[in-house]
Amino acid sequence: MNKHKIKIGLFGFGNVGRGLHELLQNVPETNVEIAAVCVRNIGTRPADYPELKFTTSAKEVFDDPEVNLIVELIDDAEAAYDIVVTALRRQLPVVTGNKKMLARHLPELILLQKEMNTALLYDASACGSIPVIRNLEEYYDNELQISVKGILNGSSNFILSKIFNDGMDHQEALRLAREKGFLESDPTLDLDGWDSLFKLVILTLHAFGVYVEPEKIFTYGITYMTDADIRFALEKGRRVKLIGHAEKTRDGRLVLAVIPQLISKNKFIYSCEDEFNGVVIKGLFYGKQFLVGRGAGGHPTSSAVLSDISAIRYDYFYRYKRMKSGDLPHFTNDISFRAYVRYHDDSELDMIGFEDISERYISGDTRYVVGRVNLRRLHEIRSYLAERKIFIAAYPED
Amino acid sequence: MNKHKIKIGLFGFGNVGRGLHELLQNVPETNVEIAAVCVRNIGTRPADYPELKFTTSAKEVFDDPEVNLIVELIDDAEAAYDIVVTALRRQLPVVTGNKKMLARHLPELILLQKEMNTALLYDASACGSIPVIRNLEEYYDNELQISVKGILNGSSNFILSKIFNDGMDHQEALRLAREKGFLESDPTLDLDGWDSLFKLVILTLHAFGVYVEPEKIFTYGITYMTDADIRFALEKGRRVKLIGHAEKTRDGRLVLAVIPQLISKNKFIYSCEDEFNGVVIKGLFYGKQFLVGRGAGGHPTSSAVLSDISAIRYDYFYRYKRMKSGDLPHFTNDISFRAYVRYHDDSELDMIGFEDISERYISGDTRYVVGRVNLRRLHEIRSYLAERKIFIAAYPED
Repeated sequence: MNKHKIKIGLFGFGNVGRGLHELLQNVPETNVEIAAVCVRNIGTRPADYPELKFTTSAKEVFDDPEVNLIVELIDDAEAAYDIVVTALRRQLPVVTGNKKMLARHLPELILLQKEMNTALLYDASACGSIPVIRNLEEYYDNELQISVKGILNGSSNFILSKIFNDGMDHQEALRLAREKGFLESDPTLDLDGWDSLFKLVILTLHAFGVYVEPEKIFTYGITYMTDADIRFALEKGRRVKLIGHAEKTRDGRLVLAVIPQLISKNKFIYSCEDEFNGVVIKGLFYGKQFLVGRGAGGHPTSSAVLSDISAIRYDYFYRYKRMKSGDLPHFTNDISFRAYVRYHDDSELDMIGFEDISERYISGDTRYVVGRVNLRRLHEIRSYLAERKIFIAAYPED
Repeated sequence: MNKHKIKIGLFGFGNVGRGLHELLQNVPETNVEIAAVCVRNIGTRPADYPELKFTTSAKEVFDDPEVNLIVELIDDAEAAYDIVVTALRRQLPVVTGNKKMLARHLPELILLQKEMNTALLYDASACGSIPVIRNLEEYYDNELQISVKGILNGSSNFILSKIFNDGMDHQEALRLAREKGFLESDPTLDLDGWDSLFKLVILTLHAFGVYVEPEKIFTYGITYMTDADIRFALEKGRRVKLIGHAEKTRDGRLVLAVIPQLISKNKFIYSCEDEFNGVVIKGLFYGKQFLVGRGAGGHPTSSAVLSDISAIRYDYFYRYKRMKSGDLPHFTNDISFRAYVRYHDDSELDMIGFEDISERYISGDTRYVVGRVNLRRLHEIRSYLAERKIFIAAYPED
């Protein structure tokens, strides 16, 4: 569609939608304009944005003969899915940022793109402004990929930074994050790791060519972290970060998890602070790459959306090259790793079933152990761990 | 050339050339092979690498009907230029990593690519494994670009890291860098900033659409740094880093320099250590992006070369979109900035012509001032500064 002017049918006019509108007004010569905006309630928007055409009818947008690209920026994952499918079926290319929808529906959306010969781009869905999907697709595509891991959620990272850098207590940091608008209306999405999980599923597909259903992946956040855990980390010279982790083992299996991790100073991720996201991509030959940028917010995310819009102008589409490799790694939870676990009574330790325990601490109400745990076991008893408010963090040797 | 097998005519078989060969042997299903290798002296190579065909004749490689892509990885910039021009004229796409050649000849090579409708890719030329050119071309192409700056030379960064992190003295760090093979045979290329300069010229073209001849850009390295300068930095809680810097001013002019800088802890670049390169790209909407990776070495660089080879398979070429913008910034050296300057006698201060001096220190042989200097003036008297072994570092307020 190189020669045409792009006329966007935009769904959703929240932070990112408004950011996109503002960006288009600021960037000269994009040859991109918003033809129509579909929102649930029109309200005062026509008065606030007289230059835009608002509607509540999706059909009206799809039927608009001017519209040649759909941008989907709404919250509701199932409604987003319907929009994306409708667009692809009409051979209208789509740009979306909806990670939950993608994490759930990617395999069929990949088939549908192929069937309809129409592109679906979504770099905004993982790590906002950081072009991590595009780079995995285009730049690291020949590499023997070893791992992709990092801070995939800006809100929880903001809270952890305030605690570990500025000495705020947990509640105070939470309050500040809320004030700054960094938390979703349902904060468990950020704090319990679900947002990171969706992004991890998407990144894994592009990095390793393998789709893993979200519910198969152990996901545990920072909700149950207390001052005792913070003290432990600081005493060891480490910081707690919430990490999404995808790694190929030496024997060619693929391990995935979202879990707090005690990060030592010598790691890139140690210095990734505030609302920034940071991803470390490791390959056999290029070694480590570290990409940092704003992971959320209207402006950074709309900037990623515009990059995808522009790519569609040049007929770009994801080739999912790695999925076609003959030698795909098999997903497994059957690995063990060293963890720090704060617990309340010994029955909990029995339930977790440590392979060994190398450190044990009991003082008043505070009890923790350091030992090797099995990831599959943790996944099986996840709801038990959460009910008991047990805090777990991976605690690598280095 | 999507369907064909890629058969490379390779020029040069140093670190990067050998790295590429090794990488191709390790990566399955690339459909890429080395058809012939042109070297200056064949020596024992046929015995060491019986699987490769060596020749000393460039003509033989170009005339080989099998060869459908040229990879140029030799040191000599003028010979590299001849190879690239010959290849493009024969409509053979080329991948090169020769920054010096590119910094010198890019404008004509851009025209030649267009005329011959043949791609020249060179992501390996700037920051080794970091895909910075590709991202500037493809991902940040719509953004209101503000600045691109960073550590563009791994060798000098290795030395500075050893001094500022491990407390080594200057000579010891130099020796270690030499031992590890991190220094060019002519170390002034790394230490005086020339290597960073060539990369800066290339990055600036892709970030701002403007080509600036290398000799117009003030370039000053760390050769004259002494213990007194290191002490000053440490006292202020800063580290010296050698920074390549391209920035658009508020009034739309473009300022470029390669200069040591006193970097404070709150900057991304502060923690970019050892032989790593780190680039901070700043745009109006996405904010700051920070990309880190290995900037040199056979494996990381050959990995970047293979990414370019693979891109050519998919008919990728640089569009130099930003050069076509109607509103290109004008290069200028006419700005002033705060600097730390260690000098020997007052005549040197007169020569530099400070706009103001805010700090002055004299103790025994050590004399320094902090004050505002004009970049154009520094550029005019560069050889005087070097002759007098004056050390200069930018010293931003934050």
